[in-house]
Amino acid sequence: MKLLVLNPNTSASVTDRIASTARRIAAPGTEIVAMTAGRGVPYIATPAEALIGAAITIEMLAEHAAGFDAAVIAAFADPGLGAARELLAIPVTGLAESAMLTACMLGRRFSVVAFTPALGPLFRECIDYSGLAARCASIRFVTRPFASVANVHEEQEDAVAALATAAALEDGADVVLLAGSPLTGLAARIADRVPVPVLDPVSPAIKHAEALVVLRPRKPRAGTHARPEAKPSSGLPDALAALLARTD
Amino acid sequence: MKLLVLNPNTSASVTDRIASTARRIAAPGTEIVAMTAGRGVPYIATPAEALIGAAITIEMLAEHAAGFDAAVIAAFADPGLGAARELLAIPVTGLAESAMLTACMLGRRFSVVAFTPALGPLFRECIDYSGLAARCASIRFVTRPFASVANVHEEQEDAVAALATAAALEDGADVVLLAGSPLTGLAARIADRVPVPVLDPVSPAIKHAEALVVLRPRKPRAGTHARPEAKPSSGLPDALAALLARTD
Amino acid sequence: MKLLVLNPNTSASVTDRIASTARRIAAPGTEIVAMTAGRGVPYIATPAEALIGAAITIEMLAEHAAGFDAAVIAAFADPGLGAARELLAIPVTGLAESAMLTACMLGRRFSVVAFTPALGPLFRECIDYSGLAARCASIRFVTRPFASVANVHEEQEDAVAALATAAALEDGADVVLLAGSPLTGLAARIADRVPVPVLDPVSPAIKHAEALVVLRPRKPRAGTHARPEAKPSSGLPDALAALLARTD
Amino acid sequence: MKLLVLNPNTSASVTDRIASTARRIAAPGTEIVAMTAGRGVPYIATPAEALIGAAITIEMLAEHAAGFDAAVIAAFADPGLGAARELLAIPVTGLAESAMLTACMLGRRFSVVAFTPALGPLFRECIDYSGLAARCASIRFVTRPFASVANVHEEQEDAVAALATAAALEDGADVVLLAGSPLTGLAARIADRVPVPVLDPVSPAIKHAEALVVLRPRKPRAGTHARPEAKPSSGLPDALAALLARTD
Amino acid sequence: MKLLVLNPNTSASVTDRIASTARRIAAPGTEIVAMTAGRGVPYIATPAEALIGAAITIEMLAEHAAGFDAAVIAAFADPGLGAARELLAIPVTGLAESAMLTACMLGRRFSVVAFTPALGPLFRECIDYSGLAARCASIRFVTRPFASVANVHEEQEDAVAALATAAALEDGADVVLLAGSPLTGLAARIADRVPVPVLDPVSPAIKHAEALVVLRPRKPRAGTHARPEAKPSSGLPDALAALLARTD
Amino acid sequence: MKLLVLNPNTSASVTDRIASTARRIAAPGTEIVAMTAGRGVPYIATPAEALIGAAITIEMLAEHAAGFDAAVIAAFADPGLGAARELLAIPVTGLAESAMLTACMLGRRFSVVAFTPALGPLFRECIDYSGLAARCASIRFVTRPFASVANVHEEQEDAVAALATAAALEDGADVVLLAGSPLTGLAARIADRVPVPVLDPVSPAIKHAEALVVLRPRKPRAGTHARPEAKPSSGLPDALAALLARTD
Repeated sequence: MKLLVLNPNTSASVTDRIASTARRIAAPGTEIVAMTAGRGVPYIATPAEALIGAAITIEMLAEHAAGFDAAVIAAFADPGLGAARELLAIPVTGLAESAMLTACMLGRRFSVVAFTPALGPLFRECIDYSGLAARCASIRFVTRPFASVANVHEEQEDAVAALATAAALEDGADVVLLAGSPLTGLAARIADRVPVPVLDPVSPAIKHAEALVVLRPRKPRAGTHARPEAKPSSGLPDALAALLARTD
Repeated sequence: MKLLVLNPNTSASVTDRIASTARRIAAPGTEIVAMTAGRGVPYIATPAEALIGAAITIEMLAEHAAGFDAAVIAAFADPGLGAARELLAIPVTGLAESAMLTACMLGRRFSVVAFTPALGPLFRECIDYSGLAARCASIRFVTRPFASVANVHEEQEDAVAALATAAALEDGADVVLLAGSPLTGLAARIADRVPVPVLDPVSPAIKHAEALVVLRPRKPRAGTHARPEAKPSSGLPDALAALLARTD
Repeated sequence: MKLLVLNPNTSASVTDRIASTARRIAAPGTEIVAMTAGRGVPYIATPAEALIGAAITIEMLAEHAAGFDAAVIAAFADPGLGAARELLAIPVTGLAESAMLTACMLGRRFSVVAFTPALGPLFRECIDYSGLAARCASIRFVTRPFASVANVHEEQEDAVAALATAAALEDGADVVLLAGSPLTGLAARIADRVPVPVLDPVSPAIKHAEALVVLRPRKPRAGTHARPEAKPSSGLPDALAALLARTD
Repeated sequence: MKLLVLNPNTSASVTDRIASTARRIAAPGTEIVAMTAGRGVPYIATPAEALIGAAITIEMLAEHAAGFDAAVIAAFADPGLGAARELLAIPVTGLAESAMLTACMLGRRFSVVAFTPALGPLFRECIDYSGLAARCASIRFVTRPFASVANVHEEQEDAVAALATAAALEDGADVVLLAGSPLTGLAARIADRVPVPVLDPVSPAIKHAEALVVLRPRKPRAGTHARPEAKPSSGLPDALAALLARTD
Repeated sequence: MKLLVLNPNTSASVTDRIASTARRIAAPGTEIVAMTAGRGVPYIATPAEALIGAAITIEMLAEHAAGFDAAVIAAFADPGLGAARELLAIPVTGLAESAMLTACMLGRRFSVVAFTPALGPLFRECIDYSGLAARCASIRFVTRPFASVANVHEEQEDAVAALATAAALEDGADVVLLAGSPLTGLAARIADRVPVPVLDPVSPAIKHAEALVVLRPRKPRAGTHARPEAKPSSGLPDALAALLARTD
Repeated sequence: MKLLVLNPNTSASVTDRIASTARRIAAPGTEIVAMTAGRGVPYIATPAEALIGAAITIEMLAEHAAGFDAAVIAAFADPGLGAARELLAIPVTGLAESAMLTACMLGRRFSVVAFTPALGPLFRECIDYSGLAARCASIRFVTRPFASVANVHEEQEDAVAALATAAALEDGADVVLLAGSPLTGLAARIADRVPVPVLDPVSPAIKHAEALVVLRPRKPRAGTHARPEAKPSSGLPDALAALLARTD
């Protein structure tokens, strides 16, 4: 099967890291095609930036999803996830949602560790949207600024391991999610030092996408993710306009 | 004071109706400037369409908000409301939020009456975001298709009055919100026939905007609506890019 | 329009301060008539005292509300708010409710800062009643006793500013409410020192009362705030008995 | 032990019925002293009436509680329950709370059957205050008006049995509470016809009062029900003023 | 009346202590028959151990409940409580549930103090099952290991009193529950040192069992605790198999 | 990889059907070993029966899990799921949990369709345990009795399709779960007739088990699913006793 892994940020180096993790975890026979946002911001950190990234995500999916079996929105706050499910016929997964749902199978409560407090409002919104707030024990943040998005996890490995351990022992987390695609790959490096499972969100999102392809759920004709009625539009990219007009 | 009333839909006739209601309810000395989305869809009905409208809303606010004392996002699902609060220094209100908050002062539970069941998922998401789901008694929909967005309320007056009455007597609603800017102006026409208050969401959003201007809350330097750190971007409209780069 | 601002406490000096804030924030053309509870306690601090104050509030409203366009219950815990809405035909607002609803337009979560821990149970009950507990980040209290209710804010200005800042930076509050009418007027003095908006609850309650008068919601004939059926009573003040008997 | 059973309504005939049920269920050695509100309304049906009754309840308890081991507030909405617990040193129970807590030991979800829809807002408020809303399956009401409060259960026996059965079979109630002291005594008469347990709230409130006396919990010196600091007051009945001033 | 008090643990010395507390609190005329689990673990501390204990509990109740008026499951996590209610015709109470419901009559929020952090997941599950999580202020644990289950409270008296006081003053608990049957009897010893009521869960469970016997609720024929349809089984103890087959 | 699929019921014919679905959905290279409960009841329908099945499940897992990469508890209510996670070192999934988590990726709200109303209390308990009650739109039941567990889906195909469609169109479900392993295999047959995705819970549980094996989360040393301290026991099956004693 063929998965489109779309990074809603414009940082190609982050996309590379995501793609590398994705390929490592993917089943034999799964082809990973990674794509970087063609416009937007290098790293989505706030609700407003996530909205911008979400709109770009659905534009890109409208243009590029044809021929793929499923898509993965590869940023922790899952920008555009619901909209993508509504507009596309293929399954779509998101890093935060997949990590939280997987955490629910590994423990009763999870904590999120992220690399800057500025992410708090965005991640809280994302957890609330999932309906799983009651299963979230805490969000903890690295507070020391990092020198580079691309190298954040080398810089922060010890700090992240300490935060994850504190989440388990002080906040009662049974599982820790490393949030933010720059942290991709770090989970494996700190696993032995943390007393509970540590999840890298890219991996669950890939496995969930693979699973949904196999389960072959029908595209809904009713409900939240039913495709909207054909509708004219103006000023939108051609592929998105065609999708809305149902002329795709 | 000067309020920017922004319709995230591209229907100028709906904007006219909103503007007319806004001017009728505004305090003496409040100037209403109404604006129609320059691109997008004629009527936002689903979460995906709301996302498209939200991104356009913040683009337009980035370009046009200068010189206004407050802004009103004039579509019931409040597309872009949180992002606008984050990016702008002036207060921003939304139709759904203002109507729900006002309903909380008029009763314990409110119902929403909308003109098509297709709006259900979008409105439920909006109610959830407000944190007021426990105070929502029901959402009821006109099920007969309407011939024209512009004339929907003339066509549907009797149906809407009957739904509002049923929401009060059967669902336990203490207040009824008429949702969807096409219904603007209908509340006054059916008020006598419904046993509980009926709110036209445009009016509360205008009054709340006026109130916030007078209260003069400071622009937050911390928390959810703090302005994000300066950030480079690519491919965004100039005004929005400048806002993100803090070069505005 | 003419607003009755009723202080359910017997401290006339607090009433004066409330009235002064109310007049400063009121729209041109709004006449503020402030009234002090004729009996009861000087400062309501607990649920039992609030119950006593609530009963006195509705007695006073029964006697004095005629001729007013709206009433404001000017104590943070809103004693008698629901009952007043049920018994009276005019809109009624309360300080806590108005402050919390306004806070919802300025941030995702609010904190309450009050001047004594003894207020905790009363304020928690009040927040629970509003249905907004999920949007409350914390309640913080000044723990140093104050010498005088009338001068509490001069004494406590620095302590309150520090608590409000801690609520924002440590508890994640996007907005801070200064609770308790003795703090009236303090918000403006500390605004510059606190990184998020600080609300004086008197002001939102006045603006909401003005807005409700303009919105002209009908008095409900059904639901929670419908006027009760005519009922005999004994031993109640004449005006309240007449209201219950519907002979007013 | 000696229990004060206080009916916050002015209907002595209802008090007699409550007292009779209370004496039937009380343990040997428990003396029941029933008292009728000296002023107020004959039957509390709305939140405003409950507030009036609550204030009268605490006045009466302030005057009469001395010498009793516990008090029972004998109206389903428990007017003044929290305030009584704060002001008095003896345990206090309420009909609604005791019935709901007992229902939690007999099933997962309970329904309330009441004899007029006008009670809806009051009972919903009472259920919310208990924190047990998630365990309430439904509230059902007799809709046929009744000729007399005193004889309501003779008139309505068949209707109440049918509603209780419908609550079990259609709403999923595991237990049914007959709410409103006029229904006292009816539970036993319909028990055989309803497939789930039916509770008369007077009985659980008596048993809980007896249990609390035996458990001998200390009067709290901290928290919600700690007695308030001594406070002057004006215009309150002597006994209540003394209680507030701590000169009792 | 005759109460079966069943300790799902295999520690007979703990059973003795429970029985002694039970007999002290029981009404004259209540006969307490205490029974120790015939197999299982000496002290249930985790959800898996509680499941093992729960299955043993219903086996024992199937065999021994005949002739009793009610049963008490005497371990704080109430193993097998719901199942026992479903299978048996007599009322069944549990220590945790009874303590929490009683706490609701003594305050707005309760804390649980237990003697080892290992109990956290089990107790949280138990609180969640009750639907009262919103009324739980905190769970606090003695962290110093104890030398013997039988003598735990002599060893830990000071630590428990300090934790209970901290729960009241720092966490806002209005009542403190001493959880875990080894702590039975300790509440009375520390009551004077803690500013809020301290509950020994054995006592409320006995009083609730007595009350339910007097209330005589019918065995439900519908809903959660209705007895299941007759069903064959294999490999189960005779008494339990007979209960399932309805041949008892 | 090698998955142990354990049916906690004693119906071998149901196990066969589960195994067949499991093998169809499993990845190449996944070996499915299906096992039927050696004792217990033919079909778990109530909380008490689920408790019996749960205890048997962990006994069987203690005895047979060695050598497997993961285990699947193949009954909709997931009997013993949490306990299995605590006791075993390998990942464990359950049908209900996996179906609900997967439903969260396919829509905002799901409904459960089951083949007898007797399952209501058990399934509600299971949904509550997951923390996803707010995302459950409804539970609907086939009310016509079925002739045979083994053939239930042939008999009930039309009824189930009608219920699933009603759940979507009337209750607002975006996804429908067919609950109860006897319905295994039915989803594919009715998919075209229902306007939203229909999930057979066996399939998601298999795919989740496979995913967890690949993700290789560490066995927690802290938190809810940490293995309990070594503990003596009496009267338990040898393998389970060894697991508890940590002598396995």
